[in-house]
Amino acid sequence: MSSAINDLTIWTYDWVPEGPRGFVRDLRLRWACEEAGLDYAVGTIPFEGRETNHLAQQPFGQVPFLKDKEVEIFESGACLLHLARKSEKLMPRDPVGAAKTSQWTIAALNSIEMVTVPWWFLKISGAENAGLTGWMGKRLDQLERVLSEQEWLVAGRFSVADLLMADVLRVSLVRSFGDRPATEAYVTRATDRDSFRKARADQIAHFEAADVD
Amino acid sequence: MSSAINDLTIWTYDWVPEGPRGFVRDLRLRWACEEAGLDYAVGTIPFEGRETNHLAQQPFGQVPFLKDKEVEIFESGACLLHLARKSEKLMPRDPVGAAKTSQWTIAALNSIEMVTVPWWFLKISGAENAGLTGWMGKRLDQLERVLSEQEWLVAGRFSVADLLMADVLRVSLVRSFGDRPATEAYVTRATDRDSFRKARADQIAHFEAADVD
Repeated sequence: MSSAINDLTIWTYDWVPEGPRGFVRDLRLRWACEEAGLDYAVGTIPFEGRETNHLAQQPFGQVPFLKDKEVEIFESGACLLHLARKSEKLMPRDPVGAAKTSQWTIAALNSIEMVTVPWWFLKISGAENAGLTGWMGKRLDQLERVLSEQEWLVAGRFSVADLLMADVLRVSLVRSFGDRPATEAYVTRATDRDSFRKARADQIAHFEAADVD
Repeated sequence: MSSAINDLTIWTYDWVPEGPRGFVRDLRLRWACEEAGLDYAVGTIPFEGRETNHLAQQPFGQVPFLKDKEVEIFESGACLLHLARKSEKLMPRDPVGAAKTSQWTIAALNSIEMVTVPWWFLKISGAENAGLTGWMGKRLDQLERVLSEQEWLVAGRFSVADLLMADVLRVSLVRSFGDRPATEAYVTRATDRDSFRKARADQIAHFEAADVD
């Protein structure tokens, strides 16, 4: 990894406050590249003015976005599916395995994160809603049932679907899994991987390096 | 379309109450098949007991799911990306066009629907939250800016990304676009297509046929 020009560049902020360090979604793309052994650079856009300064690259003013030669793509889930096509380590190559990887990648975004992020949003603003909490609990129970029966989501092996699901769960629940031991073990299993540890350490170092004393 | 055995089968409920008719997500898959001219069958599972009777096919107890020969896949977004690979009418074939289609498909699910569905959930339960409403308004304003500058999301032509984005917007906002004329015109443009009209009419007829007088 370097900040030099590279075919594959992950774009993120130049700096963020301490709170979100280790959680900014460029970590998902770093993790995927580390897992697959893909060489990549990290490009930066200013955190200051982030809501308007890169709308041409990301119309919602967010990070990450990815450049791969002539392809420019945003949405971390779409970036992950793009990276997955570059390495069998991220997605099985057979049609059934590829379809299941796509299925569980989108389930992480649209069946789990669609509930956990709004739940978190309401909770931190002191407006926790019992209905939404119940809805989240039900979804997590359904996922717990799946994870009780299998180590990984697709084809008995780690894939980009696990990378994303584990990241969604690790962020939203902040380790409060309660009575969902299979889910807790799954997140621990995923985040114990060297690829995750390196991606997380690199992201934290990246933001720390921009701190002004 | 028939209910006979077919290589491509969209699975949905046998019946739903009147309220959700025309909105159940199998419509997205019907629409995609109609748009692409793909032959398909519709299979049914009982609405009664839906939360537990098909967990082997869909661990969150939802519809739709899709069977395409040996491939079985759930999550409407993943099903749409699977169908998109079968027809250039749903997704451009060049790498840039394919990446942008994936990007906007996932943006519909994870940047728009992740806000609009929880907003709707809170609203119908009488617990509308100002923060979440503001967040949704901001995202819709950002999308309005995009749609003010282009007719379709990808490559100047209709794609599966528009199909999904229009469906997400049509469901969540129930035509109350207010001061977002480009978004309103976009949804009208998408849902004026013959493929949408047929998919919607077919879904409504499917559920009506199961009504018991």
